[in-house]
Formats: sequence, structure tokens, C-alpha cells
Amino acid sequence: MIKHNEYFDGNVQSLALEGHEKPCTVGVMAKGEYEFGTGDPEEMRVIAGELIVQLPGSDSWQSFKDGESFMVPGDSKFQLQVPVDTAYLCIYG
Amino acid sequence: MIKHNEYFDGNVQSLALEGHEKPCTVGVMAKGEYEFGTGDPEEMRVIAGELIVQLPGSDSWQSFKDGESFMVPGDSKFQLQVPVDTAYLCIYG
Repeated sequence: MIKHNEYFDGNVQSLALEGHEKPCTVGVMAKGEYEFGTGDPEEMRVIAGELIVQLPGSDSWQSFKDGESFMVPGDSKFQLQVPVDTAYLCIYG
Repeated sequence: MIKHNEYFDGNVQSLALEGHEKPCTVGVMAKGEYEFGTGDPEEMRVIAGELIVQLPGSDSWQSFKDGESFMVPGDSKFQLQVPVDTAYLCIYG
């Protein structure tokens, strides 16, 4: 069974994929601003839309659009500005 | 609010994106075999995994993997073999 999760009152939702080399989820973030925390390191790939991220320890914001990706260290927090509903793939570990 | 849909007893699940040029969903198909019907024409993009598709009117099966896509005509049915849990982006219209 595909695991469906909701965060931020349903404004971020994800679906988990089993059987891949690393655990991963696809999801949608509704337009808005969010702070996420990581356990394992994560690779975030933008599928459709835009994520504007402030990575841990950074003072600046970087934009990532369709097909672009960024890495987030484990055990950290990062800030996201999401200017339009955005689909992403998150690969853990 | 992000719309979450389930099909085939939860073995296919999707999340809808609002505010894009065309309506689109991201989703996951669990390993298995499925027949889908279209209303509007659809572009299906494989994000992670593999879709083996028999398009309407075709006798043959074609494989599409990460980053590849195929078009499905409107008002048609198509068959899918899904050898591993697969994430997809579907763009309608």
C-alpha cells in the first residue's frame, strides 16, 4: 500500500515509493512558506513549479525550478518559499 | 487544499497541482498491472521507476523510464505494466 502523508494542515502532502535503491517520496507543496527539518540527508528535485530555499547556515535564498535539485544535510532545518504549487521528488539517505 | 485521490484500492494515488498552465497531478503507481481511461488527452512523464505501456490501437508494449514521457489520446483506454513502484507526472489537456 502506498503511504500517504500530510503536513502543515494538508498544505504539503507526499506519497512514498517502495523498492527503490533509496527511500523516496513524491509530493506537492501548496503555495506558501515552510520550515522543514531533516533526519537523514535529502536530495530534493523540483518536478514542476519552483522552490526558493534557504539552506542551513546560509544567509541567501536560491531558486530551483523544473528538473533542478538541491541537497540538504541530515539533522538540519531549512526554509522554503513556494511561489506556486510545486511537485517534488525527495530522495533520502 | 491539495486534492488527494486513490484508485485501484489505493494502489495508484495522486496529488493535484493548482495554478499551472495545464491541470496536472503527481502520483505513485504500486507495482502491478492497470487499465486506465482518459477524458482529456494526457502527457505522462516517468519521474522515478518504469511504465510499460500499450497505447490505444497498438499491439506492442513500450518502456518508459526516469525522465521519459508519452502522450495518450483523449477518450481512450491504455494498459500499463508497472514493474516497480513508479512516480509519475500527468499533464492534462
